[in-house]
Amino acid sequence: MKRYVNPKPSEWAKILSRPTQSFEAIEPVVREVFGKVESEGDTALKAYTQKFDGVNPTDFRVSEKEIAEATGRVSEGLKSAIKTARDNITKFHEAQRTNKVILETMPGVQCWQEKRPIQKVGLYIPGGSAPLFSTILMLAIPAKLAGCKEIILCSPPDEEGKLNPVILYTAQLCGVTKIFKIGGIQAIAGMTLGTETIPKVFKIFGPGNQYVTVAKQWATKMGIAIDMPAGPSELLVVADDTANPAFVASDLLSQAEHGADSQVVLISTSGALLDKVEKELENQLAALPRQEIARQAIAHSRMILVDNDNTALEIINEYGPEHYIVCVENEDFYIQNTANAGSVFIGNYTPESVGDYASGTNHTLPTNGYAKQYSGVNLDSFMKSMTFQKLSKKGIQNIGKSVELMAAAEGLQAHKNAVTLRLNELKG
Amino acid sequence: MKRYVNPKPSEWAKILSRPTQSFEAIEPVVREVFGKVESEGDTALKAYTQKFDGVNPTDFRVSEKEIAEATGRVSEGLKSAIKTARDNITKFHEAQRTNKVILETMPGVQCWQEKRPIQKVGLYIPGGSAPLFSTILMLAIPAKLAGCKEIILCSPPDEEGKLNPVILYTAQLCGVTKIFKIGGIQAIAGMTLGTETIPKVFKIFGPGNQYVTVAKQWATKMGIAIDMPAGPSELLVVADDTANPAFVASDLLSQAEHGADSQVVLISTSGALLDKVEKELENQLAALPRQEIARQAIAHSRMILVDNDNTALEIINEYGPEHYIVCVENEDFYIQNTANAGSVFIGNYTPESVGDYASGTNHTLPTNGYAKQYSGVNLDSFMKSMTFQKLSKKGIQNIGKSVELMAAAEGLQAHKNAVTLRLNELKG
Repeated sequence: MKRYVNPKPSEWAKILSRPTQSFEAIEPVVREVFGKVESEGDTALKAYTQKFDGVNPTDFRVSEKEIAEATGRVSEGLKSAIKTARDNITKFHEAQRTNKVILETMPGVQCWQEKRPIQKVGLYIPGGSAPLFSTILMLAIPAKLAGCKEIILCSPPDEEGKLNPVILYTAQLCGVTKIFKIGGIQAIAGMTLGTETIPKVFKIFGPGNQYVTVAKQWATKMGIAIDMPAGPSELLVVADDTANPAFVASDLLSQAEHGADSQVVLISTSGALLDKVEKELENQLAALPRQEIARQAIAHSRMILVDNDNTALEIINEYGPEHYIVCVENEDFYIQNTANAGSVFIGNYTPESVGDYASGTNHTLPTNGYAKQYSGVNLDSFMKSMTFQKLSKKGIQNIGKSVELMAAAEGLQAHKNAVTLRLNELKG
Repeated sequence: MKRYVNPKPSEWAKILSRPTQSFEAIEPVVREVFGKVESEGDTALKAYTQKFDGVNPTDFRVSEKEIAEATGRVSEGLKSAIKTARDNITKFHEAQRTNKVILETMPGVQCWQEKRPIQKVGLYIPGGSAPLFSTILMLAIPAKLAGCKEIILCSPPDEEGKLNPVILYTAQLCGVTKIFKIGGIQAIAGMTLGTETIPKVFKIFGPGNQYVTVAKQWATKMGIAIDMPAGPSELLVVADDTANPAFVASDLLSQAEHGADSQVVLISTSGALLDKVEKELENQLAALPRQEIARQAIAHSRMILVDNDNTALEIINEYGPEHYIVCVENEDFYIQNTANAGSVFIGNYTPESVGDYASGTNHTLPTNGYAKQYSGVNLDSFMKSMTFQKLSKKGIQNIGKSVELMAAAEGLQAHKNAVTLRLNELKG
């Protein structure tokens, strides 16, 4: 790992820079696919699935029979693990439910705020070598708890035109209402526009490659909401001599194995700790099946040695890490003063993996510094807040004059008049 | 107003259609301005302010002296009204504050969720004939309550290079930290990229014309969050024979005076009510200063007569109104079953104007049907949720096996290893 010792603040931005990618070149393809799906519906979906995935689907919708068969093909051990994760995620997200906020702001002026479910949501689960069923847990569980009526899931079919059994098992376990074997730009276009088979949804969630990322951004132009903008996954660890170097190394590697461009940063006030972690990295790397990927990621990863905790904190807040491990003696200092982070893992016995799978927190988190302004996925991501107000006669009499004055000052006479008419009637 | 009687569901989409506008033609200008502001900073801001607003600013930043002078130029009556509104808005948004969510999901697995302020936010307030100080109340008050450290405001200067005194008065009253005399695309570019004078912010709020709308969308491509996508303002009223026709007409007109393309819909199960409202509209229109605008909006507005409440409700949910007045005997039916609306105004004494200015609810609301998936601005709009977890030795022993199984099933050995190392140490 590349090591920096007390870098000057003017150098931080460069040291903390993420690999930025411009996807503008993909936009014309996305535009074309959306256009075709809008005009041709399922016919276009089939043509693109043939073209991009090399399979010729007879039916996008996964049948009840397929789901039932899948359940029998997942090992009991894995089922039990998934249920443990489901229980924890359910508890933690259910605890996030907020009550109706009711307030009489002035005598006779009753206001309240209520959250109601987004009626139709779409979940995208990428394909690839391994089935990302953990992301289904993270998206479908809060969607179901929120009360979304339609929870659809799209995932690209494998070479045989199928979805992995564990994907189907997890989806039905978590309350997904319809599963579709379709991926890529065409899946996002289908959920955005609606076709004969795929229902149009109001919000789309889930990770994906660059095509899916651009397609989701395109969908926002058409009035569809998305969970958050995407970027490569990342981990920042702050550790001192109380941290177990082998554990720290294992956490850095669990991030590094995601891809050669994975983002890993280790900050410490202890040079000795950095030395020990470096040695442990070498030991552990040798045993990893994804060693080559992890080695590339580690090669351009960064260790930063700083003089004191305040400097470490400033660097952390400038970075705004997606995953953030705090393994130091004075952990409260970091926990209380970190302004920007997605999910925080505290102490020697809290590896990032527990939050990736099963602790109960969500693993769909803001990358790329977006922790400065975006929340990770949570129960509220599947709801929207609505406000209500009801005034009594007394209420309009109490507030009326203020509204008249302000409306007049903004040059909106009809706004004023709506109040004046009511006040006059009450005088009469 | 155009009247529809029991339209078929297949016709609803057309009847409820909003004026859609494509702003793609504006994108090249936006791209150019952002590019120049990125490379030239303040110099570009000055050049564009000269070009688009016709004024040559010596200093964008409003001085303390200007603010002090402005305070003296706002009438005591208006100040008092603004303070009443501020108090109500403060109370209602403060009541939205949520507690930390803390939960032990399994023995030894402690998880919590906390909301922390977005550190830097930018508020955009449009210029034009009237000073929209009410929008400052709606954005700066929750920003301040949330704990945002930097709350900047940009608004275009008038012909003399100044901002209206009531804008300055309201901004300082509500805790805006810096005020800048700059508008349009260049203001949004400045807040997105940062210049010598304008700080870069993490999230941009506020309404604007089509240039500002496209610039805000452009900003999201650069990692900046925005409050919500924009569309023309709209009002839907559902009313029956218990509604006062004069009041209903005044509410429709207060929406109609916004612009010739304003969206107004009135739904009723009573033909008699529709007749009376139509007559009242004619009476009240004659007295309005913005009569011509309102008349155009009313001419293409829609009255829909339906057989029963269920049909009315279905139409309302398909529309998803920004502002929604419920003035019927069985108001509970509508309040409880409306899935999609921004802000709801209930009964004969609750005109939309009270929520526009002073009841306490926010007036920055989802238009264009976005109530289906977006919240109106609220306290949480200025915060982001972060999650935390801390496992004890017992905790990792309880959850470890499940995480190992799931990580292995997703093909992520290093994720598994981070758990295994810890479990092995605890066995030893």
